[in-house]
Amino acid sequence: MKALGRHMIVELYGCNGQALNDVKLIAKMLKEATEAANATILSVQVHPLTPQGVSGVVVLAESHISIHTWPELGYASLDIYTCGEHTKPERALEVIREYLNPKNVNIVELKRGVLLE
Amino acid sequence: MKALGRHMIVELYGCNGQALNDVKLIAKMLKEATEAANATILSVQVHPLTPQGVSGVVVLAESHISIHTWPELGYASLDIYTCGEHTKPERALEVIREYLNPKNVNIVELKRGVLLE
Repeated sequence: MKALGRHMIVELYGCNGQALNDVKLIAKMLKEATEAANATILSVQVHPLTPQGVSGVVVLAESHISIHTWPELGYASLDIYTCGEHTKPERALEVIREYLNPKNVNIVELKRGVLLE
Repeated sequence: MKALGRHMIVELYGCNGQALNDVKLIAKMLKEATEAANATILSVQVHPLTPQGVSGVVVLAESHISIHTWPELGYASLDIYTCGEHTKPERALEVIREYLNPKNVNIVELKRGVLLE
């Protein structure tokens, strides 16, 4: 049974709080993660939140990568959703782990668009 | 046990293929869905895909709504991820169902950011 996409739903706990609050760093991280995953960027939006935190989404030709951060809790909520055999979402996660240095990571992976042939 | 966010992961099958390929309609739908959910838009990105389909993401003050469409398959992959007691993600889904008229809908709901107090 084939699926159109792979969606990695990732909880990052015990991250570096300063990194989680740095809009420029998060934007750089998302671009590097996309490159590592061998995916193509259509657009990038990264916003500071009030009173702290960052929300960033990269729309890809192959779906999206999103992150929402809670610096005060050391927590980030990450989605890496890619389509196509050429993409390597695990590599995006490796890049993001290097940037945020979480103490614990939880991953749920879903197949999206399972269509009977 | 409290969670920071609710993430509805929705598979829409048997949708109106013409609607799934209409960038303007998808953008309008995402904005209306956000309003219905009582969430706040930070930015909207909607892109046509090659050779068909649309990818759209609304970054919210309360996380995000994303959709990726395959008009040729009548399939759309939808995520409605909201934080805060004031948001009503089910209402966003109601709006999107009205626009895309799917024959079948599958929903998985995850709690995001479950933190022990």
